[in-house]
Amino acid sequence: MNLGEYFKRRQRLVDRALERWVPGENEFPPQVHQAMRYSLFAGGKRLRPILALAAADAVGGRPVDVLPLACALELIHTYSLIHDDLPSMDNDDLRRGKPTSHKIFGEALAILAGDALLTEAFHLLTRPELMRDIPPARRMRAICHVARAAGSTGMIGGQVLDMAAQGKEIETHLLEYIHSHKTGALIAASVYAGAILGGGSARELKALNGYGEKLGLAFQVVDDLLDVQGEVKKLGKAVRKDKTQGKATYPAFFGIAESHRKAEALIGEALVFLKSFNGRANPLREIAKFILQRTT
Amino acid sequence: MNLGEYFKRRQRLVDRALERWVPGENEFPPQVHQAMRYSLFAGGKRLRPILALAAADAVGGRPVDVLPLACALELIHTYSLIHDDLPSMDNDDLRRGKPTSHKIFGEALAILAGDALLTEAFHLLTRPELMRDIPPARRMRAICHVARAAGSTGMIGGQVLDMAAQGKEIETHLLEYIHSHKTGALIAASVYAGAILGGGSARELKALNGYGEKLGLAFQVVDDLLDVQGEVKKLGKAVRKDKTQGKATYPAFFGIAESHRKAEALIGEALVFLKSFNGRANPLREIAKFILQRTT
Repeated sequence: MNLGEYFKRRQRLVDRALERWVPGENEFPPQVHQAMRYSLFAGGKRLRPILALAAADAVGGRPVDVLPLACALELIHTYSLIHDDLPSMDNDDLRRGKPTSHKIFGEALAILAGDALLTEAFHLLTRPELMRDIPPARRMRAICHVARAAGSTGMIGGQVLDMAAQGKEIETHLLEYIHSHKTGALIAASVYAGAILGGGSARELKALNGYGEKLGLAFQVVDDLLDVQGEVKKLGKAVRKDKTQGKATYPAFFGIAESHRKAEALIGEALVFLKSFNGRANPLREIAKFILQRTT
Repeated sequence: MNLGEYFKRRQRLVDRALERWVPGENEFPPQVHQAMRYSLFAGGKRLRPILALAAADAVGGRPVDVLPLACALELIHTYSLIHDDLPSMDNDDLRRGKPTSHKIFGEALAILAGDALLTEAFHLLTRPELMRDIPPARRMRAICHVARAAGSTGMIGGQVLDMAAQGKEIETHLLEYIHSHKTGALIAASVYAGAILGGGSARELKALNGYGEKLGLAFQVVDDLLDVQGEVKKLGKAVRKDKTQGKATYPAFFGIAESHRKAEALIGEALVFLKSFNGRANPLREIAKFILQRTT
């Protein structure tokens, strides 16, 4: 399969759905909808939505049944970026090559736009006119999983400890906790919730959960490496910031070469979890390999 | 009926449930759970949870089926207070007689604790071990309604315009939009979603929606009046702030006496919506009258 083509096709599907389901820029009050859409359509790769769709593929589900979840995941991811970039958090001026939300709209509106994106995610997941073919109990299970992964013992928990660890000596297990939570949790939940909605069996869900966890952690290790080795122009955000801010990163702990090896090992383990799946899991396999090679 | 007793009993019910369902202070990472609980247990009246329970009473529902919704509404309300108090928003130092979240925990953790409370609300609403006797489709409908009321065209929309209107001349219809959204939307949704989970008929839901909208607007008008006439000691927050900040308020627009009359008229209209209900709606009736007399 051609992963580039697959990504482009799925990105279009997700972008069209977001365009349709998220309130328009002119919807009242326009300020907040402009701010929401500014960050939402700033050129994200749509990795989480595509993982949810690919996980549904892997268990024989239909993309149309998973699309609202796919969009909700991107709304949650986008809100987390807006809030992480705030002056009182990472204080970033640049994201995906554009000024961050608070630089354009001011802090108050950036906070509220983030809040609104998070809330809209759960609105989208519960709208009665969507996902009509999914049994409501199954749908509720997927939403519950996403909420837990995004919450205080998931993504937010990771971000809290990431902030707390700045400039401090920490132990390896805390480093791993931060990485597997601040980024890993939502990536893993994208795979898992996509597979739930796709109708995966208990055995399939267990395997895909393993895949998602390894993939999520690998993604953040590669992110750390890109911060050390990447270019502002390609990444569209400031580089070498982790070091300046005294962040807990894999390269700072283990060095560049060893971090590379760890990411490779994690992707290898992720692929093992897909062993019992047929060709329908090929997108998930290709995405795992791509995570290692990505340069943006 | 004795409203004071009713309130106390229901507050205890809600507080015990929050204590049970919200992650404990020692749950990892403790910082965020301490910050969440600091604001959650700072002495709120639990008006929104009690409205949800009273609306279920009115249509013959059982409190136990509505309790997770009641708690979720308080989580959402608490997150909105934490974010509204932030330096870039209303910049308040005092809330319910105590230092605001960012004063104790710093801005970053206050923002994240707010995010976590909002996320936890939707987690609580979808946990499979709760609300087992409610048909999942009905439950989904209630969640969808809450999400819309809390989002960019509801509570957040009201807050966005409240910020934008500061120090500006605005028209009456915008004043009413701000009030009916920033406070009214979640109050109305508490009544409506409580009635959905309680198994209300279409006719009952329509009437309770009318009641909730009038009540929500009246609540904010009285809030404005308390800001003008109240005492810091009783209210536990700064007074006369609306004027200093150039906020759009009913007393500023219509004067104190006329604002009183408007609040009274709204409560009168709210009560008319309850005409066809029997004695089971008495708590809703008493709460409406109480809104007018409240001094905190």
